[in-house]
Amino acid sequence: MRQASHVLVIDSRGRGLYDFTDRARQWVGRSGIRDGLLTLFCRHTSASLLIQENYDPEVTRDLERFFSRLVPDGDSLFEHVIEGPDDMPAHVRAALTQTQLAVPVSGGGMALGTWQGIFLYEHRTEPHRREVLLHLLGE
Amino acid sequence: MRQASHVLVIDSRGRGLYDFTDRARQWVGRSGIRDGLLTLFCRHTSASLLIQENYDPEVTRDLERFFSRLVPDGDSLFEHVIEGPDDMPAHVRAALTQTQLAVPVSGGGMALGTWQGIFLYEHRTEPHRREVLLHLLGE
Amino acid sequence: MRQASHVLVIDSRGRGLYDFTDRARQWVGRSGIRDGLLTLFCRHTSASLLIQENYDPEVTRDLERFFSRLVPDGDSLFEHVIEGPDDMPAHVRAALTQTQLAVPVSGGGMALGTWQGIFLYEHRTEPHRREVLLHLLGE
Repeated sequence: MRQASHVLVIDSRGRGLYDFTDRARQWVGRSGIRDGLLTLFCRHTSASLLIQENYDPEVTRDLERFFSRLVPDGDSLFEHVIEGPDDMPAHVRAALTQTQLAVPVSGGGMALGTWQGIFLYEHRTEPHRREVLLHLLGE
Repeated sequence: MRQASHVLVIDSRGRGLYDFTDRARQWVGRSGIRDGLLTLFCRHTSASLLIQENYDPEVTRDLERFFSRLVPDGDSLFEHVIEGPDDMPAHVRAALTQTQLAVPVSGGGMALGTWQGIFLYEHRTEPHRREVLLHLLGE
Repeated sequence: MRQASHVLVIDSRGRGLYDFTDRARQWVGRSGIRDGLLTLFCRHTSASLLIQENYDPEVTRDLERFFSRLVPDGDSLFEHVIEGPDDMPAHVRAALTQTQLAVPVSGGGMALGTWQGIFLYEHRTEPHRREVLLHLLGE
């Protein structure tokens, strides 16, 4: 049993979902660990992680539409507005989704379902450089 | 230290929460691993996982009532309607709950709290066959 | 490769977010495991876990304001009212946040981002004694 880790840097172009399934898959393949547990950890509080359908791009657009309505930018409810009208909504969206995901690894690959992809969800409107920590434990 | 994994098949009868705590517990018991980390991974994007109270069935009915109101079927917000009015709401509900859970295992059993049960949350109105991957790492 | 576990007891003073990053960090330091995977598991269904910004206290206050509006106490939607108007909302809030978190450990410390803190989110209005199970697997 051994472990490996890696920092994946994702440059977002602003709010939206960024599919990085292939980059995670490639790193798992290179690690030499064939069976184990992959943990993905987002090192931010205004971006998050999500496993969603990666076949029809309408799904991620509709997801964004839903979250924009549920947590509107510039909501007068919020006091924390120091970084702009999308700052506090970004924190709420991150709280409603995931900071961290775990995916079993089997036969050298992630055991995702047929339609599942792994996304970084950027919640700020401006582009940001984001770090996702990959940690793999297995043999 | 070693690992074990298993695919649990759950046939849903349509939308709602399905308690599979006992089935997970039985598999952990049979694995022979007494202390470690259990990961449960839902291989779908329109069903999800949840740990909730499994004592009073009103709790899961109220949960479903809340999600039905928060993410209404047939909402005109959504463009992805190809599989019906409950398709995109199912993806949103999955995003708001969990694709994956981890539960520490101690003394041969899951270290759940007294009232905690593990549920598959089926978000589609029609019955579906669902796969939950169990992965256990320990000794 | 080895593992360690510990029950952290947190006495909440009622609804709100309780930062316990330092207590988790200290336990990780004492465990002697320098690289691995830390799992934090909340053994309750009316309290939950969250990674959020721990720099500006306005963020957690705004989060609470958002959840109070999204899941109002005493909502007539709910049938499960046996323990009071905040009982079922507490279960819904727990479902919308996390029962469990995993944080990679590197060089003897948690690999959190600069602004990330780990919080227990108490959803009941009355004070409660809460247990968070810490499990660390590594070397």
